[in-house]
Amino acid sequence: MPQATPALSDALAPSVHRYAMGIEYDGTSFSGWQRLSKHGESDPEGYLTLQSVIEEALTFVAGTPIATICAGRTDAGVHAAGQVIHFDSPVHRDPRGWVLGTTSKLPPAIGALWCVPVPEEFHARFSARARRYRYAILNRTVRPALGRQVLTWERRPLDAGAMHRAAQALLGENDFSAFRTVQCQAPHARRELQEITVSRDGDVVTVEVQANAFLHHMVRNIVGSLLVVGRGDAPEGWIAALLAGLDRTKAGPTAPASGLVFLGPRYPADVVERLGLPASIRL
Amino acid sequence: MPQATPALSDALAPSVHRYAMGIEYDGTSFSGWQRLSKHGESDPEGYLTLQSVIEEALTFVAGTPIATICAGRTDAGVHAAGQVIHFDSPVHRDPRGWVLGTTSKLPPAIGALWCVPVPEEFHARFSARARRYRYAILNRTVRPALGRQVLTWERRPLDAGAMHRAAQALLGENDFSAFRTVQCQAPHARRELQEITVSRDGDVVTVEVQANAFLHHMVRNIVGSLLVVGRGDAPEGWIAALLAGLDRTKAGPTAPASGLVFLGPRYPADVVERLGLPASIRL
Repeated sequence: MPQATPALSDALAPSVHRYAMGIEYDGTSFSGWQRLSKHGESDPEGYLTLQSVIEEALTFVAGTPIATICAGRTDAGVHAAGQVIHFDSPVHRDPRGWVLGTTSKLPPAIGALWCVPVPEEFHARFSARARRYRYAILNRTVRPALGRQVLTWERRPLDAGAMHRAAQALLGENDFSAFRTVQCQAPHARRELQEITVSRDGDVVTVEVQANAFLHHMVRNIVGSLLVVGRGDAPEGWIAALLAGLDRTKAGPTAPASGLVFLGPRYPADVVERLGLPASIRL
Repeated sequence: MPQATPALSDALAPSVHRYAMGIEYDGTSFSGWQRLSKHGESDPEGYLTLQSVIEEALTFVAGTPIATICAGRTDAGVHAAGQVIHFDSPVHRDPRGWVLGTTSKLPPAIGALWCVPVPEEFHARFSARARRYRYAILNRTVRPALGRQVLTWERRPLDAGAMHRAAQALLGENDFSAFRTVQCQAPHARRELQEITVSRDGDVVTVEVQANAFLHHMVRNIVGSLLVVGRGDAPEGWIAALLAGLDRTKAGPTAPASGLVFLGPRYPADVVERLGLPASIRL
């Protein structure tokens, strides 16, 4: 049977294809997520950003320049187990082709995890309803060697129970000015902290935290203050007092980047199901 | 009160001090444990062994050449969470001095964990009654990026339950010729496999195994054959048949080094208690 209207069906096909993609990276050797150059240009001498390296790999697969939007911009040295990006491409590739083709062009520290075609209404950043981070602290007298890339080291004994109890004061919608870096460009500091747990497994103390969104350095500043409580240098109630005081200069120092992993964003359950996105990013 | 006989007490003090020490390392960049040069000389061009690097650090702390004996010689690329060594020193240092001084001279991939003075009857290798290893496999379609240093990658789905059941055939005292590399220099191949478990946690399949001692490549050869079963390319009974056949050429390929961590040796409980060694190395 002759195909009557191939030209018409081409004309009706979208001229741009949007894809969501999951990305994993060891951020140790990178200058953070955000590209430090114009799109399509290399990062400045001495800098290497995840965005520019990933866009270069996607551009290779597409054969045409690709720009990305991510769910959560991570700082220099911070890792991601489940970063999510979206990008628009004038050419169609099947999801497996994007994942394998992109990964083949990425350095060992970065890999694509999955790819799903999405409608243009989906936005990696604006569609996300929550973000989740994990911070891992090796708590022993000697520094880490094995696994040191994803750990922060604290030699003084930490009371994880005290840290956990103190952290619960942060739950709910609050003004997090006390835990926001001066460089933070967000128009306001109100965020909804949905969950924060501190637990110990042997020598490793882990902080896991979820909020609708985070301010710049917010997780590392919260952890830095929880460490002060954990060492016994401040009472549990100090965290609540810091939050109420809205004064960054009163809080603990910013905890190092190496212990921080962006577990990923969370999207509304109905969106995840309708678009066939992985269950791991479902709110 | 005047001290009457300092000279005599000096003369009665042992002329050599033996120490046991716990060591952790990321073996990625090393050519294995064993020194490839004479003691006191550097490794040959292009090689770097854990033993030579650690002996150099100990020698710095002692101010005199120190040689080491380890509980389990690990191959190139294999890691250790709890290697144990012993060494003799003509000079006394307190345990904290050995740990901190040695670690300060070690590269980031190696660290000393603890140090305990022991009598000359203690021998890191010969006093050990068991060794324990862990092998970690990331089982998903795309390669690991975060934590890739301590993972092996298997893209085909693994049936961890089948691997576990198949592995139980190895328990007990057996001739492990089927899982021994041709380079193995041990006089015989009889070893007592005390425990082997295969379990899955998300995308990670972990094999944990304990034996009185291991042949060269034994853990990696066992894992290589369990992977064949896990992929469904051989039935569960194949492992028992391999063991009975005593033929290395029939078994699966040697699994990569990167997934293997030497958890450490185990010493008799009464020795550990009497000498004040860490409970983590108690059988």
